[in-house]
Amino acid sequence: MNAKRKNILLVLKEQRPTVFETILKHGHMMHWSIEYYPAEIPKNWYGDGAIVDYISPQEIARLPKGTPIATRSSIIADNIFPVRADTEYNMAMVFNFFRSRGYRNYAVANAHPMLYDPVTVIGRMAKEAGYNYDFIYWNLVGKKVMKEDFTRCIKVIGEWLLQLPKPCALYIGRIRSVHLVYRACEQVGVSIPKDVAIVSNTDDPEYGVNLLPSISVMSDNHEGAAIKMVEGLDGLINGKPAPRQIQLIRSDRIVARGSTDAYAVEHPATMQAIDYILSNYSNPQLTLQDITRAAGCTAVTLQRNFAKYLRRLPSSFLQEVRLEGAAAMLEKTTLNLQEIAQNVGYGSNMSLSLAFKSRFGMAPGQYRKNLNRVNRK
Amino acid sequence: MNAKRKNILLVLKEQRPTVFETILKHGHMMHWSIEYYPAEIPKNWYGDGAIVDYISPQEIARLPKGTPIATRSSIIADNIFPVRADTEYNMAMVFNFFRSRGYRNYAVANAHPMLYDPVTVIGRMAKEAGYNYDFIYWNLVGKKVMKEDFTRCIKVIGEWLLQLPKPCALYIGRIRSVHLVYRACEQVGVSIPKDVAIVSNTDDPEYGVNLLPSISVMSDNHEGAAIKMVEGLDGLINGKPAPRQIQLIRSDRIVARGSTDAYAVEHPATMQAIDYILSNYSNPQLTLQDITRAAGCTAVTLQRNFAKYLRRLPSSFLQEVRLEGAAAMLEKTTLNLQEIAQNVGYGSNMSLSLAFKSRFGMAPGQYRKNLNRVNRK
Repeated sequence: MNAKRKNILLVLKEQRPTVFETILKHGHMMHWSIEYYPAEIPKNWYGDGAIVDYISPQEIARLPKGTPIATRSSIIADNIFPVRADTEYNMAMVFNFFRSRGYRNYAVANAHPMLYDPVTVIGRMAKEAGYNYDFIYWNLVGKKVMKEDFTRCIKVIGEWLLQLPKPCALYIGRIRSVHLVYRACEQVGVSIPKDVAIVSNTDDPEYGVNLLPSISVMSDNHEGAAIKMVEGLDGLINGKPAPRQIQLIRSDRIVARGSTDAYAVEHPATMQAIDYILSNYSNPQLTLQDITRAAGCTAVTLQRNFAKYLRRLPSSFLQEVRLEGAAAMLEKTTLNLQEIAQNVGYGSNMSLSLAFKSRFGMAPGQYRKNLNRVNRK
Repeated sequence: MNAKRKNILLVLKEQRPTVFETILKHGHMMHWSIEYYPAEIPKNWYGDGAIVDYISPQEIARLPKGTPIATRSSIIADNIFPVRADTEYNMAMVFNFFRSRGYRNYAVANAHPMLYDPVTVIGRMAKEAGYNYDFIYWNLVGKKVMKEDFTRCIKVIGEWLLQLPKPCALYIGRIRSVHLVYRACEQVGVSIPKDVAIVSNTDDPEYGVNLLPSISVMSDNHEGAAIKMVEGLDGLINGKPAPRQIQLIRSDRIVARGSTDAYAVEHPATMQAIDYILSNYSNPQLTLQDITRAAGCTAVTLQRNFAKYLRRLPSSFLQEVRLEGAAAMLEKTTLNLQEIAQNVGYGSNMSLSLAFKSRFGMAPGQYRKNLNRVNRK
């Protein structure tokens, strides 16, 4: 038996294959002997360190005093490396995703209040922008509705959905709860994404793919959090001081999926211009005059309405559609840059490359490489 | 919303990425909308069908009467497709694995008694063969030792390990419990695999890889069970009658890992012959005379002792080592058949191919293809 091998406790409250496998893999590289327990910290455990994911401070106190610990709980202590999602950053991403699509009605659905709560954060952003806002905690209505009564839970969510002003942008706190909203929509006749457009997070990539109607998802970056916890724990074990602040993990991106990638613009001419751009952006000869003509209004009216609903000019909107298209092709196809440039209406791969870099902060090749690493399955 | 989409409940008691992802993937192909809940069936759920893995009959009774259900519980009913591991077959595989390596002392360690219990099955096989046998349920000793007291649990297992006759072949019911035995061995100075050679199952491939000293693992074929449940449930939903018997899932194989792939033969000359074969099997010119000479005894003595300890002749043992070597190379390398034949001491790829097929029931190419499918990550 190798004396240098560390005994590391791993306790995961939730079934998240990405977190589980990432920790096993990276822990393996650290030469850890990982002792896994689902859900609960075993009593009188002892060893070299622990990763305990979403475990309460009370329960963490069961570990021997001074044990190095990495955790997704908000605890600052000499032996703890704390990690959590950067809710402020992530929710700004969600809010801007909807805002740039013209939404003025916002809502958040979640099981119950949390310390860093999307309900609070998106609510504040919507109110600051002067938009409508509503929310629901379905496990509070009638106390623990979901666990107690699936049928009643769907009824409660359905009634809430019905009274929302439409079209509404809805963020659902956990992708595993999305089916409750699907069921509720079906029951009360609310349509996705026409009446309610949804973004949720990705607890698990495979789970998200499975949903229909497909919704846009914010990548929770659980892999990043898992790696951070392994590295943080390794640091503590090797005598590095514990950070004095919670380490924030940011989402990578929002993956816009067809059916939710809707626009909510009340001005018919602007909607026509949007449709025209979405259908013709691959044509490099496309001009503002073409777009104005398709909209059937003056250039000034069009500019004003784009600014009002989409918060940018028609030309920026066109560029964004082209770059998002290029990003999608880098992800989903094996086309080379030249071919992609042609497909999204860029005159040359050089100009695409430059614009892409300024939008996404990296060159197209780098973007594709990163994605291949993430989507390694 | 597509009216034809089925609402399928998925409840998994245990964190098993393979089961989770296989069901999501295959359910997706069936156009199911999967509603996942960890650990518990939600109250008043209703829908088109349910997969509930390792859930008690009492809890299953919560589902609406007549709901089609696939489950790994042993229930026979008109609406249930029951699946379970073929314990009898799997444990025979484990027993024969050790027996063919010369072990005469057997033991099983498990948390608590089960309906289809390795403790009973291996116990019966060992006793029938006239071998020593012992077992431990560590959650029974002092009532729920593991959950109540990690330290005491290791002490109890350590004392048990100490008194086992050595060398001992040990089967551990769950790979996630193997660390308890590692800790106990370390504490009482029992060596793996010299004193105690271990086989466990694979709850999760990544978890098994992580163990050190590495042990041999019996592939539990959770993927096969998951696919069976999806297909079984699909059948029930489409009106196929429920099977009148529990569907048995057999393990694919045992993956022998270096450090546990030990032999327990008390006869020194035979042990020398084994070592000689293991070191020289890649030489196609290797003869029985060479082996006998290395053993330092007569051919008759050698044959008698091979039969006694390994239950086969030296020539069959040599062939098995060569074929196991070829199988490992098919799995772990990209060498072609010609190169593999040379490496394992076969004169031609044709003769290797024939022998391989008669041993593993499939051609080498087929074997590699199957593994690539299983190890898709």
